[in-house]
Amino acid sequence: MKLEDLERFIERLPFATIDHLRPLTQGHQEVIFCQGKTPEQVVEIAQRLEVAGGSFLATRADLPHREALAARFPRAEANELGRTVYLPPTPEPEPTGRGTILIVTAGTSDLPVAEEAAVTARALRNRVGRLTDVGIAGLHRVLTQTDALRSAAVIIVVAGMEGALPSVVGGLVSVPNSCASGITVVNIDNGFGAAAAASRINRS
Amino acid sequence: MKLEDLERFIERLPFATIDHLRPLTQGHQEVIFCQGKTPEQVVEIAQRLEVAGGSFLATRADLPHREALAARFPRAEANELGRTVYLPPTPEPEPTGRGTILIVTAGTSDLPVAEEAAVTARALRNRVGRLTDVGIAGLHRVLTQTDALRSAAVIIVVAGMEGALPSVVGGLVSVPNSCASGITVVNIDNGFGAAAAASRINRS
Amino acid sequence: MKLEDLERFIERLPFATIDHLRPLTQGHQEVIFCQGKTPEQVVEIAQRLEVAGGSFLATRADLPHREALAARFPRAEANELGRTVYLPPTPEPEPTGRGTILIVTAGTSDLPVAEEAAVTARALRNRVGRLTDVGIAGLHRVLTQTDALRSAAVIIVVAGMEGALPSVVGGLVSVPNSCASGITVVNIDNGFGAAAAASRINRS
Amino acid sequence: MKLEDLERFIERLPFATIDHLRPLTQGHQEVIFCQGKTPEQVVEIAQRLEVAGGSFLATRADLPHREALAARFPRAEANELGRTVYLPPTPEPEPTGRGTILIVTAGTSDLPVAEEAAVTARALRNRVGRLTDVGIAGLHRVLTQTDALRSAAVIIVVAGMEGALPSVVGGLVSVPNSCASGITVVNIDNGFGAAAAASRINRS
Amino acid sequence: MKLEDLERFIERLPFATIDHLRPLTQGHQEVIFCQGKTPEQVVEIAQRLEVAGGSFLATRADLPHREALAARFPRAEANELGRTVYLPPTPEPEPTGRGTILIVTAGTSDLPVAEEAAVTARALRNRVGRLTDVGIAGLHRVLTQTDALRSAAVIIVVAGMEGALPSVVGGLVSVPNSCASGITVVNIDNGFGAAAAASRINRS
Amino acid sequence: MKLEDLERFIERLPFATIDHLRPLTQGHQEVIFCQGKTPEQVVEIAQRLEVAGGSFLATRADLPHREALAARFPRAEANELGRTVYLPPTPEPEPTGRGTILIVTAGTSDLPVAEEAAVTARALRNRVGRLTDVGIAGLHRVLTQTDALRSAAVIIVVAGMEGALPSVVGGLVSVPNSCASGITVVNIDNGFGAAAAASRINRS
Amino acid sequence: MKLEDLERFIERLPFATIDHLRPLTQGHQEVIFCQGKTPEQVVEIAQRLEVAGGSFLATRADLPHREALAARFPRAEANELGRTVYLPPTPEPEPTGRGTILIVTAGTSDLPVAEEAAVTARALRNRVGRLTDVGIAGLHRVLTQTDALRSAAVIIVVAGMEGALPSVVGGLVSVPNSCASGITVVNIDNGFGAAAAASRINRS
Amino acid sequence: MKLEDLERFIERLPFATIDHLRPLTQGHQEVIFCQGKTPEQVVEIAQRLEVAGGSFLATRADLPHREALAARFPRAEANELGRTVYLPPTPEPEPTGRGTILIVTAGTSDLPVAEEAAVTARALRNRVGRLTDVGIAGLHRVLTQTDALRSAAVIIVVAGMEGALPSVVGGLVSVPNSCASGITVVNIDNGFGAAAAASRINRS
Repeated sequence: MKLEDLERFIERLPFATIDHLRPLTQGHQEVIFCQGKTPEQVVEIAQRLEVAGGSFLATRADLPHREALAARFPRAEANELGRTVYLPPTPEPEPTGRGTILIVTAGTSDLPVAEEAAVTARALRNRVGRLTDVGIAGLHRVLTQTDALRSAAVIIVVAGMEGALPSVVGGLVSVPNSCASGITVVNIDNGFGAAAAASRINRS
Repeated sequence: MKLEDLERFIERLPFATIDHLRPLTQGHQEVIFCQGKTPEQVVEIAQRLEVAGGSFLATRADLPHREALAARFPRAEANELGRTVYLPPTPEPEPTGRGTILIVTAGTSDLPVAEEAAVTARALRNRVGRLTDVGIAGLHRVLTQTDALRSAAVIIVVAGMEGALPSVVGGLVSVPNSCASGITVVNIDNGFGAAAAASRINRS
Repeated sequence: MKLEDLERFIERLPFATIDHLRPLTQGHQEVIFCQGKTPEQVVEIAQRLEVAGGSFLATRADLPHREALAARFPRAEANELGRTVYLPPTPEPEPTGRGTILIVTAGTSDLPVAEEAAVTARALRNRVGRLTDVGIAGLHRVLTQTDALRSAAVIIVVAGMEGALPSVVGGLVSVPNSCASGITVVNIDNGFGAAAAASRINRS
Repeated sequence: MKLEDLERFIERLPFATIDHLRPLTQGHQEVIFCQGKTPEQVVEIAQRLEVAGGSFLATRADLPHREALAARFPRAEANELGRTVYLPPTPEPEPTGRGTILIVTAGTSDLPVAEEAAVTARALRNRVGRLTDVGIAGLHRVLTQTDALRSAAVIIVVAGMEGALPSVVGGLVSVPNSCASGITVVNIDNGFGAAAAASRINRS
Repeated sequence: MKLEDLERFIERLPFATIDHLRPLTQGHQEVIFCQGKTPEQVVEIAQRLEVAGGSFLATRADLPHREALAARFPRAEANELGRTVYLPPTPEPEPTGRGTILIVTAGTSDLPVAEEAAVTARALRNRVGRLTDVGIAGLHRVLTQTDALRSAAVIIVVAGMEGALPSVVGGLVSVPNSCASGITVVNIDNGFGAAAAASRINRS
Repeated sequence: MKLEDLERFIERLPFATIDHLRPLTQGHQEVIFCQGKTPEQVVEIAQRLEVAGGSFLATRADLPHREALAARFPRAEANELGRTVYLPPTPEPEPTGRGTILIVTAGTSDLPVAEEAAVTARALRNRVGRLTDVGIAGLHRVLTQTDALRSAAVIIVVAGMEGALPSVVGGLVSVPNSCASGITVVNIDNGFGAAAAASRINRS
Repeated sequence: MKLEDLERFIERLPFATIDHLRPLTQGHQEVIFCQGKTPEQVVEIAQRLEVAGGSFLATRADLPHREALAARFPRAEANELGRTVYLPPTPEPEPTGRGTILIVTAGTSDLPVAEEAAVTARALRNRVGRLTDVGIAGLHRVLTQTDALRSAAVIIVVAGMEGALPSVVGGLVSVPNSCASGITVVNIDNGFGAAAAASRINRS
Repeated sequence: MKLEDLERFIERLPFATIDHLRPLTQGHQEVIFCQGKTPEQVVEIAQRLEVAGGSFLATRADLPHREALAARFPRAEANELGRTVYLPPTPEPEPTGRGTILIVTAGTSDLPVAEEAAVTARALRNRVGRLTDVGIAGLHRVLTQTDALRSAAVIIVVAGMEGALPSVVGGLVSVPNSCASGITVVNIDNGFGAAAAASRINRS
């Protein structure tokens, strides 16, 4: 396909440009990043994505965004902690990919980022697991979960106030079959980015 | 003219010093930076600029600034997104300069800075164009607009969350007739500064 | 196996502790990080790894390290640019994993990191490809290589002086079948870490 | 021209990728950035540029780079202070562009960056002027040069240890006919980038 | 005890993991860090700690946390300045340890951190003293208290706006019998961490 | 006087330690820094200073501090912009010192810091002058005031958004009789500190 | 003792001031910090300390310092790795204090800091132990040493390239009888400071 | 005098601009900052200053600068530690100003900055005193010197590794007659700047 032929898959609104090529090329639509957008803008983008693909995911959705989307899409699922709104396809397809994405948190204050990651990973059609509040102050809380860690296909560690947990998880997992050097890090507080990277690994 | 003769073009208020030489030397008046000023101070400066030149531009104008200016100058145009208030001359003169200043944004959250830049560029008598939400996650959104980029006289890239877009635009524009090394950057969130620099290039 | 049984796989020297569990659990031995070690220490560790597994990889090896290892292990391969010394097993096993790890550089000054990554990826039994000096100042240098980028299983972008290249590669690769959000970043100048992460993805 | 047709203008060496489209599209060839390259690599790139266009410019050239280029190209002009080597075309074409690029330095320690900028601006076919050591500790050193500043088409201020000079120059130049807001800044110690930006403005 | 046997001392809630081994191993229970938890979550954790040990300490407790805990545990002592809620055991045991932990503040704005430290130190069964507002602008305010400083077993200096006070206290105390090099520092605004470290020293 | 004799000049409240030696040794009392103190604490300190010396100065006084002080001390002068409350002695003594402290601001948003400095300088018994909104975008606004600058004994430059103004003022003042190298800087937004340093120079 | 009486314990050289009160008050003399001193200055200070107390410790001693001290004090013990020179008293007194200071390193490159700490701790009359190269990439290297960690009175963790090790050690040690919150940190690369703090805890 | 008349006092060399107005306006000539200049350039500037005023001061003079100046000006005094070369006038005039500038150092490694300050203060015609190695680890080293501190007109504290000393000196001096708030700070390692500021205060 030539570059100019791609233009008809691109919908240009006054405040946003929607890329309708993504479902074809990636198996999922664009994700709506609500921060910096008005509720009206978010609803308008969501409508066009719903028309085109029967589904949408909105992240960083504050209360006004969530209320506007709920009013327009009664079937959409809002997650207050993770600040997401997800309209699943009907029927929601089975997860694919090699295995489970395990989301590990160090403390309760990490739950918002973890929830954003969990919803995103589900919307990208992955199976999701959770291991909560296993900071290393009481190291046995995580040591006793070594089997759970080792059975995951990909691990996301959310540990905003405890920089050591990712290394410890890497060290534990490395004992049987992986490599602590292979830990990667995404932007701070970026549950979406963590899930997108994990999904890419899980589904490639 | 000797230095001491310049003093009579300088109006010293208790809280501000207005430089009435600028319309003579630059073709436009001082711009009112509202942040840190009370609405009453902003109106008082605007009145003196209006008396002297029949026009003013106020930037970083929050709601109280905008309401105070609207009450006093019914003809002034407020831009909520860009937080500007502009009182155009009557009649508004035609744009001059070599061509169009094109304002490119990476995402919806860049629109406030882009609007400040657009209003400023207009007030400095430039022709203005826009290319919206062409972040590089879907690279074809910007690749398909190469012709629009190449036809601009000056390009302002506003990409607060995506540091790569200015380089990509530079790389695209350089293919036929310019140089990616020649990209310049202004202060973060500073739409006014971007437009002032662009106007200087466009009109020199 | 109980924790105390692991102790006999751990060899404790006065200046280093060698972990002989890794070949069993990860398919490769510990890697020798030469920085901060004397040439004599590096040779002593290399000897014990060679006895145990017939192979070793040393990174951040300066000239004295490289000379000491070459004198003791004539069959070892030194890479001056990447500052590595690699003693391959005899015979060197075939690469495994799903596909090729492609190492992309923005400029000539990125070659040392790229070489460290290439040797590491090979030692971890991956197939390795290279795409050199495709910084985005001349964007067509990389645009014309889209097919090569898309055929890789994992991509490592080394771009010390050009922060935009990883995003551009992500944007290009996403067109057909992946996601620009899924780009991960390792420590600066850390070719080893990049290769270890890539290998983990390629071989999981 | 289609994207794949561009490939034949791209010369891929093992350590560098040369873009032969630039003389056609920009009126000058790629510039060789020597830092991180061996003298042999620099000479090999220079040879290919000389064959294609009869000229080259090398920046950040240390003594070994300068000696290797001088041995191979006796006609090339080395600038020790600015660390450049320039092989001008024969005959060297007249400068074009609207006027003079004036390079202003605050102190003697700014001369290396200024020289890199001056050679680059000349190689990009601009007329070049200099104003040396006019830091603002003795403000009359620059105040007495207001006419020289105002007669320039573009001004580059190099002031590594004195952040105030660019603002002062902007304030002086603004009095008659320009705008202090329109000052732009390039990377630290980057004489090449300053000259490339200035040339783009001067010649557009 | 084997690792798997530890699991029954770990209580896993949906949002938190409680480690009931700590009273056995350390003489005190887990401390509840309220920041990032809802009042309901804090109360639920407090209930389980109270059932298990008859006591709890909550830090970083904002007004809603404090009100929810007060409603459920009328006997609990809330400290508004230090943002703590402490339910002491009945009867509260005598302090142990070698001596007094003296908490020194530079100014009134240091009192919140100092109060958090004081309540924590008490909950960890230490005797606590205070020396308030002895910043070094009037050096005799602290010089005249040298005897009090020297009689303490451990000193915590809280001096958010005056970095010199810890060194001065170290210098004063060193005169008779200790060493200014031995001053340690904990995280900014972290009264809990300061008290935990001090308690460890005082009670070891 | 021996160290222990000083203790009776020190008044130790539960939340503050008042140093009554200062009027004897410095000619003025302690200044009350309100930030981090409750209105009640501020009033209690002010009362003790008023009893001891018939005067007080409070800085960083928010509205509740100002209202509480106004209710208790009707004669006190509140400055809303500078966030100060000053109770002058009756009668207020004449300024002493060698000359005028001139407070120069770059823009309207610098006025709060300038007002804090002005009130402090007056309370420390200095003569005070002001030069307002002379940022260097229009350099003649400050160039035309060279005589005023040169006649001051000490100059305080408040220029939160324009780092170049202090250097320019230094350069101007140096022409006849002083030295641009001799510019000193105090903490950001610290009008009190600037005035205290200036007063020390003016009165020594 | 009055302040003026202390002056006779202070020896003022042209380049240093020696405090001979320390052996009386702390049980050990001043330590010579060699960095920034000439070898001659170091020898002169060492001589005065040796005369006064029969012993000295020099840290940050480069080769010239070590050679000068060895020439003058043949009995002194130089430690090349830790860059220390120690002249022990004759006879060297038995260690005192409650137990062993255990120095734990993450990797070979941490040995210089660890050696400085070990020599300092010995000179301050502590018993010293070592646990080498137990970084957490292979977590069982440290897990298998839990008993050794728990039997120490104080632990110093030196882990310049691995920020997680101190937390992991804290988590392990806390299981039986201490508190991970009680970990303290000293300045980077500061083996002396770590040992001084540890000694203070061990001997108080 | 008009601005254009000042030009004849300005000597413009190819690499430097010498301001011969300074002896008239400030009582001393420009100071030569050697860093970034060749020895030849430094000698040429020194010659012109010597012709004009019979004296010069060069700072940041490395060995080649010092040797070149010594060869040309046998009477000049080089200070190796402070890296200065000073040619005093013949005869050297008596110091003026209100009193002594006292230079206080925390440790031996502060002596180079202190020497640069001392030579500069002398060249600017001030009386100079020194107080050496009075860091606060042994607080009585500085407490016993309170009288010396109080008798100085201006104090310069050089304490590169001990941030608390300036505050402590401020606190000590404040007891009788000054104010700890009035401490000012100059650039790191900038002995010249410290002396220039101190001289300005001492001589105003």
